[in-house]
Amino acid sequence: MKVDKKGAVVLLSGGLDSTTVLAIAQNQNYRCWCLSFRYGQKQSVELEHAEDICHKMGVERHLIIDIGLDAIGGSALTDDIEVPKDRSDEAIGIGIPVTYVPARNIIFLSYAVSWAEVLGVSDIFLGINAVDYSGYPDCRPEFLRAYEKMANLGTKAGVGHNNISFQAPLIAMTKKEIIKTGVSLGVDYSLTHSCYDPVEHLACGRCDACRLRKQGFVEAGVKDPIGYAE
Amino acid sequence: MKVDKKGAVVLLSGGLDSTTVLAIAQNQNYRCWCLSFRYGQKQSVELEHAEDICHKMGVERHLIIDIGLDAIGGSALTDDIEVPKDRSDEAIGIGIPVTYVPARNIIFLSYAVSWAEVLGVSDIFLGINAVDYSGYPDCRPEFLRAYEKMANLGTKAGVGHNNISFQAPLIAMTKKEIIKTGVSLGVDYSLTHSCYDPVEHLACGRCDACRLRKQGFVEAGVKDPIGYAE
Repeated sequence: MKVDKKGAVVLLSGGLDSTTVLAIAQNQNYRCWCLSFRYGQKQSVELEHAEDICHKMGVERHLIIDIGLDAIGGSALTDDIEVPKDRSDEAIGIGIPVTYVPARNIIFLSYAVSWAEVLGVSDIFLGINAVDYSGYPDCRPEFLRAYEKMANLGTKAGVGHNNISFQAPLIAMTKKEIIKTGVSLGVDYSLTHSCYDPVEHLACGRCDACRLRKQGFVEAGVKDPIGYAE
Repeated sequence: MKVDKKGAVVLLSGGLDSTTVLAIAQNQNYRCWCLSFRYGQKQSVELEHAEDICHKMGVERHLIIDIGLDAIGGSALTDDIEVPKDRSDEAIGIGIPVTYVPARNIIFLSYAVSWAEVLGVSDIFLGINAVDYSGYPDCRPEFLRAYEKMANLGTKAGVGHNNISFQAPLIAMTKKEIIKTGVSLGVDYSLTHSCYDPVEHLACGRCDACRLRKQGFVEAGVKDPIGYAE
């Protein structure tokens, strides 16, 4: 299947960031092929949110791939390791958290590159952010630049075909800026899910992801439309 | 789980090349964690060979991950596209063949990086070869160097932990040299499987992989211990 030049692959977790990215790509007149992963995450409810978002935002296709990352383990998001709660802003910003999944973004991007190559599209949108996730090595701009270079050497792009280009429009934004951008584009944040450790489908309100989200809505002066367990 | 410094992750397809790489790593006193993939390949018989090889060569662990690459498609190795037969040496060397799986090595390496990070090992061995597979962009040395740089930026290695190092000892060898190396290390090539399109568990003898293998054994002056359908 070949698509026109304005096609893009969008990595969509069902969270606030990647949903904003989808809205940005659509606003730039991209037709979007959305990619999500079943990787053994405990909060697989996010995939239901991703499906709902794709349906309501009108994407070309939503593909969920089973990638078996739980076979490797090593993270609080896939293993029986406790997700930290009620951490201070300072603690969130220091070191590599236990919610870091080893090489997860490296793996996610590799599937996006593969699908882009099969679809014949050049642009891959993703919601990585180097402000809130400064502790994740695979959210840094220098990582993404190195990835792009590698991807262009390791695919047909490297031998004269279309170049792979990564678009990370949120990479330098604060959560407040991300939310304001999304609101201006009409994103319905009630569809999104951010929590690392939901309580019966409700966001816990206390993990790093919930804390960053709640604070972002407060700073943006916008009411967070989702409910929290506490 | 932490292992000593001489641990390595070895990408093992069950083929001639990766089995030789495992023997090379073991000869360098590495304890080997072998990684194979179920990616929707039509010739999944290669995984049975990989299991057998791991058992007989005494590795630390053999992990087979279901990676769902068939959801993306785009290759004669995963889709309903015919595997080319009886191609001339010249044809094999030109362009990107239909047996190229989009971004496959990018994906395989990303899992190896993830597992190495969880195990705490630095070295990743793989059997890529830029001589016979000159048409595959993801078998080139410049690709592997770019991948290594990216991997060290995108993992804990990038923030002061152990560095990821890729070892591709076959990258500049001819098939003849690979076979001679393996024979000198005692590799039992009867355990290995190379064919892209086996006929009832027998190698077809006519696809590119079979042709390269057969020619390599002839040039090495060694009898190929496997049987062929024709």
